[in-house]
Amino acid sequence: MTQKLILLRHGESEWNAKNLFTGWVDVDINEKGVGEAEKAAELLKVEGLLPDVLHTSLLRRAIHTANITLDGCDRHWIPVKRSWRLNERHYGKLQGLNKTEIRDQFGEEQFMQWRRSYDVPPPAIDPDGEFSQHNDPRYADIPESERPLTECLKDVVARMLPYWTSDIVPDLQAGKTVMVAAHGNSLRALVKHLDGISDDEISGLNIPTGIPLYYELDENLSPVTRGGRYLDPDAAAASIEAVKNQGKK
Amino acid sequence: MTQKLILLRHGESEWNAKNLFTGWVDVDINEKGVGEAEKAAELLKVEGLLPDVLHTSLLRRAIHTANITLDGCDRHWIPVKRSWRLNERHYGKLQGLNKTEIRDQFGEEQFMQWRRSYDVPPPAIDPDGEFSQHNDPRYADIPESERPLTECLKDVVARMLPYWTSDIVPDLQAGKTVMVAAHGNSLRALVKHLDGISDDEISGLNIPTGIPLYYELDENLSPVTRGGRYLDPDAAAASIEAVKNQGKK
Repeated sequence: MTQKLILLRHGESEWNAKNLFTGWVDVDINEKGVGEAEKAAELLKVEGLLPDVLHTSLLRRAIHTANITLDGCDRHWIPVKRSWRLNERHYGKLQGLNKTEIRDQFGEEQFMQWRRSYDVPPPAIDPDGEFSQHNDPRYADIPESERPLTECLKDVVARMLPYWTSDIVPDLQAGKTVMVAAHGNSLRALVKHLDGISDDEISGLNIPTGIPLYYELDENLSPVTRGGRYLDPDAAAASIEAVKNQGKK
Repeated sequence: MTQKLILLRHGESEWNAKNLFTGWVDVDINEKGVGEAEKAAELLKVEGLLPDVLHTSLLRRAIHTANITLDGCDRHWIPVKRSWRLNERHYGKLQGLNKTEIRDQFGEEQFMQWRRSYDVPPPAIDPDGEFSQHNDPRYADIPESERPLTECLKDVVARMLPYWTSDIVPDLQAGKTVMVAAHGNSLRALVKHLDGISDDEISGLNIPTGIPLYYELDENLSPVTRGGRYLDPDAAAASIEAVKNQGKK
């Protein structure tokens, strides 16, 4: 008996479209993102892949995407759990800044290191700065010393995996079809874990917005097919290509 | 230390506007309902009364209203729990039928008995009929013998109270500001319990759509002010008057 996991990166956000580093800044999805979420619902319906339970981050773009997608496939009523552990990577001082400007200012190498290195975080954000969420009530339960001011992907893996184990795996093992609505980097962290991708290789992996990525898992929670399967493979391929070009002129 | 409870009946639905008995039929809110939900968010913000946790029914009109209201007061990220025990009263065979037509066909007395008597349910719905939800997967967890085919308000009290005790009260006792997004009759059942309203008196109580009703509760979970307080008392009074006239020509 295999287990069913659906990963859904939020639809395009206001800041994806503006080419800004977003991280924990709580921007909403834009009109294109709404359309992506509606399309995701159609894909799930056609596939007959209806979530029994939802896990989301604490960020509006993932929550809003999930609400629209579930509404569209008549699954608005399923149980939901939210955790900061599914949040996007905290981009530190880069949050709110333009990707192209950062690339121009710091050069291609530094830019790519901050974006794609596994273990080098950007400089920490000023906790009281404009784009900091350090004092946001939704994070009050995280001990202040553990509340991130910046993160590399390795940090995301470290804070995401405990939630995978404690909350998502039990739902899978109970035979539920699980949907995780989250972010580019929290989903990369999860895919890295599922597919056993090395620290080096993960830098080349991008996850497109708004296209359900379906994993069938065996009894050891290993993917039956490595990499899973996008429910709209053509759109996924096109989108992955576009993400690679972010920050380029 | 008092406890904070916010009751929110969903905004106007497509069938409220059409004057149809809705019950467990899963209709959405209409444009006016969306506006009510947005207004509710403003009222909560102005009052500084921000929910820490949400409880909803399994019906789209309550879920959708809550999503909009929480989004509008920047509380989209709070934990949520859903239960069929917060659903609207099951209206049995009346579901999907026009209130005025029922009144004309069965007369004022029978009509008012079905709508407002405490312990006389309408005739049971055909479980396989057009407006039955008997085989809806969201109710699969309710043992078939307990899955209602019609309900009077007394039945709603009986199935709602266990959830109040098991799930809502613990949140209140943990000091959380609790929002319950539900329905005319499941909220009447709760208000009856909170205010100690008699079986006879409850028939005169209507709860308007989309206006937060705030209860401050003492350590015994008794209301500090009987009846609570609508955050927009003028709109509430006008709406209660309008509900009384439903089914009248």
